Amino acid sequence: MRLATVRTAVGTSAARVDGDHFELLGFDDVGALLASGTSAAVADVIGVVPSARAVLAPVVPQPGKIICLGLNYKAHILESGRELPQYPTLFAKFREALIGPTDDIELPSEQVSEQMDWEAELVVVIGKSVRHADAREARAAIAGYTIMNDVTVRDWQRRTLEWLQGKTFEGTTPLGPVLVTSDELGDATGLQLSCRVNGEVMQEATTSDLLFTPVDIVQYASTILTLRPGDIIATGTPGGVGFARSPQVFLRAGDVVETTIEGIGTMRNVCHGCEGSK
Amino acid sequence: MRLATVRTAVGTSAARVDGDHFELLGFDDVGALLASGTSAAVADVIGVVPSARAVLAPVVPQPGKIICLGLNYKAHILESGRELPQYPTLFAKFREALIGPTDDIELPSEQVSEQMDWEAELVVVIGKSVRHADAREARAAIAGYTIMNDVTVRDWQRRTLEWLQGKTFEGTTPLGPVLVTSDELGDATGLQLSCRVNGEVMQEATTSDLLFTPVDIVQYASTILTLRPGDIIATGTPGGVGFARSPQVFLRAGDVVETTIEGIGTMRNVCHGCEGSK
Repeated sequence: MRLATVRTAVGTSAARVDGDHFELLGFDDVGALLASGTSAAVADVIGVVPSARAVLAPVVPQPGKIICLGLNYKAHILESGRELPQYPTLFAKFREALIGPTDDIELPSEQVSEQMDWEAELVVVIGKSVRHADAREARAAIAGYTIMNDVTVRDWQRRTLEWLQGKTFEGTTPLGPVLVTSDELGDATGLQLSCRVNGEVMQEATTSDLLFTPVDIVQYASTILTLRPGDIIATGTPGGVGFARSPQVFLRAGDVVETTIEGIGTMRNVCHGCEGSK
Repeated sequence: MRLATVRTAVGTSAARVDGDHFELLGFDDVGALLASGTSAAVADVIGVVPSARAVLAPVVPQPGKIICLGLNYKAHILESGRELPQYPTLFAKFREALIGPTDDIELPSEQVSEQMDWEAELVVVIGKSVRHADAREARAAIAGYTIMNDVTVRDWQRRTLEWLQGKTFEGTTPLGPVLVTSDELGDATGLQLSCRVNGEVMQEATTSDLLFTPVDIVQYASTILTLRPGDIIATGTPGGVGFARSPQVFLRAGDVVETTIEGIGTMRNVCHGCEGSK
């Protein structure tokens, strides 16, 4: 099953994908649907929108928390001369960063930064509250998977030891297009993931190369705190980011970023210059 | 004016302190009151509770975001041999970490960690949405100030480069007891701050030693994203944490942690062993 959050005249609505239509369900978004405990398969349909006319919001627009991982693709860690880490590197992002799968990526003004960079990532969406999970409970807590491009303001990420400030610029982080439930994607292993910029493949990897798998990460994070329905966990990015290229490449106004994971879909976002800064 | 979030039989209620009583206002908590835009000074009183019988929740139980600073007391930075940083170090905490000003601090099981440590901090509470603020706008966006003890699981903080996992253990972080509005506290400079453990003074400093002031931090963070009513910003901790002592000292079950800021109040939290972990 594939779920989305569709923009409507009065806000957003959770929706179920049915061929070339979205069936609108009686919940404000996929997060609210998951929090309700209602099975999406049997939820009442309150309207239908042709896919061609639907505009999608972030698949979970208001997650209670957004947990992100760094350093989680084995080939990329080893090629950069590092040892495989014993523990996952966790950091946060705030919901103000999220945008929909076709929304513009908001570039900071040139005075703020000219180092916007891409990071294609597989995302776990939590479906059930869980704490101190074993592997079985962790697997059962996963509603399904979606895609994030963890777009990063590289120089701000590196201003201090902590990455948060480069990771949570408003309007930078596409999430979607849909949540594909675990009964279709299993543990999301062996999926091709890619990021293209203006049609050029910049990142390409398989989720089989993840050091910490979705189940590992849910189990680990649940040691720290309760994971709740609608929480999202971005599982890290493989090699090929602009910062590590020679010469370095960063996003400019008008650039088109396409982020794809096999079995989930593609997000297509255009970079847009921002005038708001002082 | 002093505001609090009082626990009731059916949840919580925002309240205004009036002598030895709490006047209950028609909002679920101080965050909801701030988000409503209603002036707390003129909000309707829907009930009264004697202070002696009131149990306080975290003063903002469900902040949209919790931004924390590291390395922000000048004397402490210099005494540890570092230069004063050019930029504030920002990291996050999730709301699951928050507890009330008299609640027990939940220790992880011994198998998880035996390195729980204290960090007394002045906290800014945002009262108005603000982005790309100048100093005047930043000051106007601050509703007031409260106290946090940013209790930290030290070994988990240091497992990886990113501190988040040691900073957001569930049920560890007291926030309160009250929000004191800016018209009483101004920019919150020159306030004595302390942390006592079992009556012994472990941290003692003045907020005049903050490198990045509340106004500085609000202005800086608003470059990154919109700050909203109820968001909280913890401004960092001075020297005297247990990890940096010789020998090191960590919190044990039964320890009493008192966190005080002049003009705001004191939180008193007892450490409680946790049995839930596997």
